Amino acid sequence: MHTTPMMLVTIVAEPVLEPRLLGEFAGLGARGWTVTDARGAGSRHMRATDPPGANVRIETVVSAAVADAILTHLAAHYFPRYAVIAWATAVAVVRGDKYA
Amino acid sequence: MHTTPMMLVTIVAEPVLEPRLLGEFAGLGARGWTVTDARGAGSRHMRATDPPGANVRIETVVSAAVADAILTHLAAHYFPRYAVIAWATAVAVVRGDKYA
Amino acid sequence: MHTTPMMLVTIVAEPVLEPRLLGEFAGLGARGWTVTDARGAGSRHMRATDPPGANVRIETVVSAAVADAILTHLAAHYFPRYAVIAWATAVAVVRGDKYA
Repeated sequence: MHTTPMMLVTIVAEPVLEPRLLGEFAGLGARGWTVTDARGAGSRHMRATDPPGANVRIETVVSAAVADAILTHLAAHYFPRYAVIAWATAVAVVRGDKYA
Repeated sequence: MHTTPMMLVTIVAEPVLEPRLLGEFAGLGARGWTVTDARGAGSRHMRATDPPGANVRIETVVSAAVADAILTHLAAHYFPRYAVIAWATAVAVVRGDKYA
Repeated sequence: MHTTPMMLVTIVAEPVLEPRLLGEFAGLGARGWTVTDARGAGSRHMRATDPPGANVRIETVVSAAVADAILTHLAAHYFPRYAVIAWATAVAVVRGDKYA
């Protein structure tokens, strides 16, 4: 099977941030995402309005350039102020043209 | 800790497809899976019967050969017709003999 | 964007084990985690008290040393006795100082 290397970016954030983050990710080039409800704890910062521990886990498979843009955006606008963490993973997909 | 390289295949699909996909993955050599309920959006295709956005996220840790068989199967039978996405990630496990 | 290589350790276990596992992971150096409710099947072993198939999926981003400590701990104390699986994935994070 021929596969294409892509990046999976996973973001864990407070639920209140979900619509704003998804809109921004779309603006940065993400063409799809998967969201699961989660709970968490960690070395977090200020919470906005959600109960402590409630989180959404957002995944998006994107090109390396879009992954970099998303991480740069999060580092500039979220990490200093919100309980957001993110990591990027190298993945292989079939039909890489479906992704950003 | 001695670890064994394996592949993690993650599939996001409409809930109605879950039992059929799991049966097919077992037939292709997967020996276990984890399913979480999710929601999503993206460059998808025809939906079967579930409400828009409802998804299941299936994970299975398998050998490289089984990962290839699963991706090949999805590409042939699902990607043209269903709202299914999938990616493969290199992972390390302890006790690789538990997996396909 | 400058990123730091870290390890993502994913553990799937019976819900009854969640508090104990999280406490042990913290003792081994994990500084945060994300938990999602899941269901699963596989080449598992004895279950404790949860219904068959109910699982929690725990993720923690840690240093390679802490990842090794967690996998070693699981292999010694859980894999022989409980329905626990785990895998480690190489990931990139921004602000690696937030993690163990």
